[in-house]
Amino acid sequence: MSIKDKVAIIGVGSTKFGENFEMTYQDMALEAVYEAYADAGLETKDMDAAWIGTLSPGLTGLEGDAGASLAEPLNFYPRPVTRVSAYCCSGMEAVRNAAFGVASGEYKMVLAVGVEKMREVPPRGSLVARHIHETHPVISKGRTAPGIFAPIATRYFHQYGYGKETLAKVAVKNHYNGSLNPKAHFRSTITEDTVLKAPMVVDPLGLFDCCPTTDGAAAAILTTPEIARELKKDYILIKGMGLAVTYGYFSMAFQEDNDFLGFKSTREAAAMAYRQAGIKDPRKEIHVAEVHDCFTITELVNYEDLGFCGRGEGGKLIADGITALNGELPVNTSGGLKSCGHPVGATGVRMVADVVNQLRGRSGKRQVKKAAIGLTHTLGGPGSIACVFVLGRP
Amino acid sequence: MSIKDKVAIIGVGSTKFGENFEMTYQDMALEAVYEAYADAGLETKDMDAAWIGTLSPGLTGLEGDAGASLAEPLNFYPRPVTRVSAYCCSGMEAVRNAAFGVASGEYKMVLAVGVEKMREVPPRGSLVARHIHETHPVISKGRTAPGIFAPIATRYFHQYGYGKETLAKVAVKNHYNGSLNPKAHFRSTITEDTVLKAPMVVDPLGLFDCCPTTDGAAAAILTTPEIARELKKDYILIKGMGLAVTYGYFSMAFQEDNDFLGFKSTREAAAMAYRQAGIKDPRKEIHVAEVHDCFTITELVNYEDLGFCGRGEGGKLIADGITALNGELPVNTSGGLKSCGHPVGATGVRMVADVVNQLRGRSGKRQVKKAAIGLTHTLGGPGSIACVFVLGRP
Repeated sequence: MSIKDKVAIIGVGSTKFGENFEMTYQDMALEAVYEAYADAGLETKDMDAAWIGTLSPGLTGLEGDAGASLAEPLNFYPRPVTRVSAYCCSGMEAVRNAAFGVASGEYKMVLAVGVEKMREVPPRGSLVARHIHETHPVISKGRTAPGIFAPIATRYFHQYGYGKETLAKVAVKNHYNGSLNPKAHFRSTITEDTVLKAPMVVDPLGLFDCCPTTDGAAAAILTTPEIARELKKDYILIKGMGLAVTYGYFSMAFQEDNDFLGFKSTREAAAMAYRQAGIKDPRKEIHVAEVHDCFTITELVNYEDLGFCGRGEGGKLIADGITALNGELPVNTSGGLKSCGHPVGATGVRMVADVVNQLRGRSGKRQVKKAAIGLTHTLGGPGSIACVFVLGRP
Repeated sequence: MSIKDKVAIIGVGSTKFGENFEMTYQDMALEAVYEAYADAGLETKDMDAAWIGTLSPGLTGLEGDAGASLAEPLNFYPRPVTRVSAYCCSGMEAVRNAAFGVASGEYKMVLAVGVEKMREVPPRGSLVARHIHETHPVISKGRTAPGIFAPIATRYFHQYGYGKETLAKVAVKNHYNGSLNPKAHFRSTITEDTVLKAPMVVDPLGLFDCCPTTDGAAAAILTTPEIARELKKDYILIKGMGLAVTYGYFSMAFQEDNDFLGFKSTREAAAMAYRQAGIKDPRKEIHVAEVHDCFTITELVNYEDLGFCGRGEGGKLIADGITALNGELPVNTSGGLKSCGHPVGATGVRMVADVVNQLRGRSGKRQVKKAAIGLTHTLGGPGSIACVFVLGRP
C-alpha cells in the first residue's frame, strides 16, 4: 500500500515571479490560490484544509510562521492550516503533506501553497542585516550559497574535463525558456558570451550561473481521483513521492560515499519516487522535468543524480540539446530557478503547477509534445534534503 | 471516512523538562526518541519517516529548521523527516501530520517529535536581543505573552465575579501534580498564599500565574492498529483530531463573536475532534486531559471552551476540585505548562505522551482511575490556532 494513484491535482496557480513590491505576502498567497480556484472551478468554501510552505518568516514580519498567514487573506477560518518548512524543499513538503491529508481519508479537498517574499530586504548596515551576518551560523562564516555550490563545479570540471562553457549552456537554455514564460522573473534571452563575460560571484560561478532572489507564490488543489472524475476535471495523479534527508554540505567532506559531484539526497529521493511510480529508466520514461537549478552546475549534477544520464554525462546531455525545450527530455521549461526565479517556499509548488500544466497540454509556447509523465525536484539545506515527485496522466 | 481508529500510538518518551544546559537540541531529541524506542521495543531501523515540531530554530543556531536536526542524531538517513511549526501547537502538529502519514498508507511506522531549547538565551543588550526587541513585530510593541493573556483575566473577573484567588487554585493544583512528576520543571508544591504574594508580571497575573521558559523534548511512535496488535503492544488509538485557525489576539477586538472570555480556535478545534470521536458530553466522556495552561487564566477559559463546564463555570470547576488529580475530570496531571514547563515545540508531544501513559495505566503516583478516553489541547499564535486530540483505549 502506498500513496501512488491515491491523490489527484485538479487546479494550480501562481503569481508572477519577480520583484513584487506592490504585493504583500498575503496578497501573493491570495493571488496564487485564486488562480488555482479559477483553474478548478472551486472556491474557499469547497476546501477542507490547507498546507503552507515558507522558509523564512523572519523576512516579512513573521508572515508564514503559521497557518494564519493563509487563513486571513482567504477567510479560511476555522479550517486547519499547517505550516511546513524544509529549506528549498518547503514548497514540495507542503504538497507532500497535503497529499497525506487526502490519502488518509481525513480531507476530501485541500490546498497546498508556497509563498516567499524576498526582495524587501533590510538595507546593509541595518540592525537586521548586522544580526544576520554576525550571528547566522552559516552566513557569518562566509558560506553563502554560491560559495557552497562553486566547489562542486570546480570538482566537476576537474573530474570530467568540462569548463564554464558547459555551465553557460544551462543558463542560455533556461533563459530562453523563461523568455516564453509570462510569469518568469527574467524574460530576456542571453548568449553563452553573456554568461562567460558576466561578473564573477564565486569562481567558477558568474552572475548568470546563479538564480536570482525573487518574490512569488504558487498553489495547488489536491483531492481524490474519484472526486476529480465526478467533477469532470482534467486531473493529474501523484505517481510517486520521495523525500530524503542526508548529511549536508558541511559534513560532505567526511562522508566516504561523497565525491562532491552530486547530492546523495537527490539520489535517495529519486530512488523512493521511482520505486513507487514504477519508473525503471527515467531517461525514457520521464517526458518533462522541473529540477532545482539554483546554480547552473546544480542542474548538471541533478541530471546525473536523477538518472537522466550516467555519471559525468550531464555536460553532454545539455550540449546535445536533450534537455532543451524541443529535446527528448525537456528540463525546466518554466525557465527554472535560474530565469523563472526562486522564491524559496513557492518554488516546489510552482514546479508542480508547471508540470501539471505540461501534462494537461496547457503550457502554450512552452508546451512539450506527448508529455504523460513528469518530474519535479528540489534540493535544500544545503544538500541535506531533497524531494522528488513523479506526476502522471490518469 | 476519517482518521478515527486508523492510527495507534505504541511508544512515547520525553526528556526531563527544565534547564537542560548540559544537553544540546540534538541530545534532547535523541533522549526523547530513545525512551520511546525502549517503550515500544523498537529501533531507528524500524522507522519509515518522522515529523519534528519546533517553533524557534533561531534560538539554537537553526536547529529544528528542517529535518536534519533529527536525522543527524538518530542516523535516520536517508528517510524523510518533515518539519512543522505552528506556534504553541507545533508539537501536536507533528503528531497530526505523522498520523496522516500512517493513515495514508504511505508509511507503516513513524516518529513524531517535539523539541525546544529555550534557556540558552542571549544576554540582554546583545545584538540578538536588540534585534528581537527592536524589530520583532509583536514584542517590539511591548505585547509579550503575559500582556496578551492578562486582559482575559481582567474581563473574566469583571464578567463572572471571580478574583485572583481562583487563578491561584489552578497554580496550586498544577504545582501539586508537578511535584509528583519526576520530569517536571518545577517539583515544589505551593500554597494560594505563594501565588497571591508573588511579584506582579502583568496585572492580574503574578509570577506563579505564568508558565516558565523551559528546555525539553518528547517523542511518540505511531503505526496502524493492525501492526500494533501484531506486535502485541499496549497501544492507544487516535479517536479524533481537530486543528482550527481563527483570527488571533490582535484582531479579537474587531470580531463580533469574541468577548475576551475564551478562544474561538479552541472551541472550533474541540468541535472537530469531538465530532470525529463521537463525544457528545465532554465532561462525562473525557476521563483525563492535558490542556494549554500557559497562564492560570488560560486553563480556566479552556475548561469552558472545551465544554468541561458551561460559560462562567470554569472558576467553580477548579474550586470544586473537579479537575484535581482525584477529581472527576483530572486536568494537567503532568503539572501542565505551569509546573511541568513549556518547551514550545515539545509541549504537544509531551501531552500526548502523558495522556497515552494515563490511558495505559502507567502514570505512577499521578495515575487516574479508570481512564479510557483522554484529551490533549494546545493554543497558540496568540489565540489564532488551537489543536485538540481525543485519544482512547482500543
